[in-house]
Amino acid sequence: MSNPVDLLVEYGKRVDPVMEKYLLRNTHPDFADAVLYPIRMGGKRVRPALTILSALAVGGKAEDAYPAAAAVELAHNYSLILDDIIDHSELRRGLPTVWKKYGLSTAILVAVHYRESISEALNDTRNPRVFHEEMARTIKLLTDGERLDILFEQSGREDEPYVVDRRYRRVTLSEYLEMVEKKTGVLIETACVFGGLSVEGVEVKTLDALREYGRNVGVAFQVSDDIIDIFGREEKTGKKVGGDIKEHKLGNIVILLALEELGDESILRRILTKSDVLWEEVSLAINEIKKTGAYNKAEEVRRKYTRNALAALERLPDTPYRRMLEDLAIFIEKREF
Amino acid sequence: MSNPVDLLVEYGKRVDPVMEKYLLRNTHPDFADAVLYPIRMGGKRVRPALTILSALAVGGKAEDAYPAAAAVELAHNYSLILDDIIDHSELRRGLPTVWKKYGLSTAILVAVHYRESISEALNDTRNPRVFHEEMARTIKLLTDGERLDILFEQSGREDEPYVVDRRYRRVTLSEYLEMVEKKTGVLIETACVFGGLSVEGVEVKTLDALREYGRNVGVAFQVSDDIIDIFGREEKTGKKVGGDIKEHKLGNIVILLALEELGDESILRRILTKSDVLWEEVSLAINEIKKTGAYNKAEEVRRKYTRNALAALERLPDTPYRRMLEDLAIFIEKREF
Repeated sequence: MSNPVDLLVEYGKRVDPVMEKYLLRNTHPDFADAVLYPIRMGGKRVRPALTILSALAVGGKAEDAYPAAAAVELAHNYSLILDDIIDHSELRRGLPTVWKKYGLSTAILVAVHYRESISEALNDTRNPRVFHEEMARTIKLLTDGERLDILFEQSGREDEPYVVDRRYRRVTLSEYLEMVEKKTGVLIETACVFGGLSVEGVEVKTLDALREYGRNVGVAFQVSDDIIDIFGREEKTGKKVGGDIKEHKLGNIVILLALEELGDESILRRILTKSDVLWEEVSLAINEIKKTGAYNKAEEVRRKYTRNALAALERLPDTPYRRMLEDLAIFIEKREF
Repeated sequence: MSNPVDLLVEYGKRVDPVMEKYLLRNTHPDFADAVLYPIRMGGKRVRPALTILSALAVGGKAEDAYPAAAAVELAHNYSLILDDIIDHSELRRGLPTVWKKYGLSTAILVAVHYRESISEALNDTRNPRVFHEEMARTIKLLTDGERLDILFEQSGREDEPYVVDRRYRRVTLSEYLEMVEKKTGVLIETACVFGGLSVEGVEVKTLDALREYGRNVGVAFQVSDDIIDIFGREEKTGKKVGGDIKEHKLGNIVILLALEELGDESILRRILTKSDVLWEEVSLAINEIKKTGAYNKAEEVRRKYTRNALAALERLPDTPYRRMLEDLAIFIEKREF
């Protein structure tokens, strides 16, 4: 099977000029470089591709979905710019992050500018009011997902009173799933729903099917990411394994499930709560995780969400576009690492 | 003459419950305190009062303007939360700023949450598409004003490549006025326009008059703030005089005009470009400024903008609300310090 993500990229890339149009509207020329930098850093454009495919899958034209697709990808970039500030990340896709390259003030101003470009794009959709409402809900939930992800960290941010006061000491699987639905699921869900909403006369039950597909694919995608973080191969991913352990994250399903088995006396627990974690310690923790059933259990969760996504798709008409959406879900389930 | 700002406060305060409604929508209970903190820190609510008065001045009802007025005040608070991060400010109105109280991550998430609440409020206006468009333009210009204000600083931010590379070494009066129109003028302009737009059947020329009034009052207000920063009395303002000098700002009209007279060999220029400025040095610089014509010239600019604001008002029907708008403009011109 060819990689369906490569096919998706073809669709997703179509919105690049659309995003640029909005990003450059009401923009000082001296600010243009900084504003275009985030979208020029790369990215697979999975979300706008989902918007376009969803529109096609319900009988619409690709072009009808471009403003909505651009808005979704701008929202994704908006969240990345801010996440990199929040997580003090200096690199993304091998390039300096926005704050690292331009400085904190400029990164904040760029992020604000993205949010307004989202609004401008939504104003060019079929029904701005509905799209604005959905986007506001989506970004508020995304924010809450990020808040929870931070509160699930087991150490660090000692200068951040809100986090120090409210840190979770335990995280249940259902708390994890709530966080992931908000942090990753909701925007992917919205990407699909926006595709449906871009087409005139689409039925509520069709929108519901797209919504269910998107949310489930989104969660499966994040679970997949979590598994890769712990069990991936550096040659393949280009990233060191165990980054989430180094960042004290209990908001990784593998870490969470391993800890349930290992308990408080484990190496893993001790390392997660240390203020500075060495890479050698990360390896120790991963070895410990490998002795647990966490991998199999995480895989099971991933399969469950993929199954739900595929089941939702059956409620759409059988078209080549639906099959592309299916391929994507299956790819996420089998994603190599 | 009684202080017209006190009267304004009465109008402005009406939107507090409206803002709270949007801020608490789609909000996790554990996040509510942090989300409400900025609007509970105080504030004179000048902008929402202007929205309501503008609606009344063109024949509308106050209630019609509440969602738009809430959106404008939320936008003001949104910019304050981010400005305090950008300027590393630890106090506002005698209370810890959002990032100081909760930490940087939480402050960023709160700011994002404000922006979405703005969207929710705009969706409840008479014509969401038009209001969203105006708000997007406004916030993009505000962002650009903030960018310029930062680039006008003569020292600091050595870890911010964008600022270090593009800092202005000279700022002309017209560059200053561009910055101030964007940073302060545009949102006050939008406050007034939103009032007009909230009323059915309002004419374009009426909207134009409100727009012109708002922008001019906004600039006069900022010039007034600049004058107070240098010549204010601490007993009256509660702030140390010369804060802008300490922060290396060339984006203060008094500093700018004084420097035009004093030239590069002045104490003022030397102090502005020092990396750390002592309060004693600020006093030295202020004494030097007092020997120039900067104060009189700045007053003249303030009067010019106030006159323009009053002239624009004459194009509105003669009502008690118009007179309140007049009083506000005159108050800003004569504002004590």
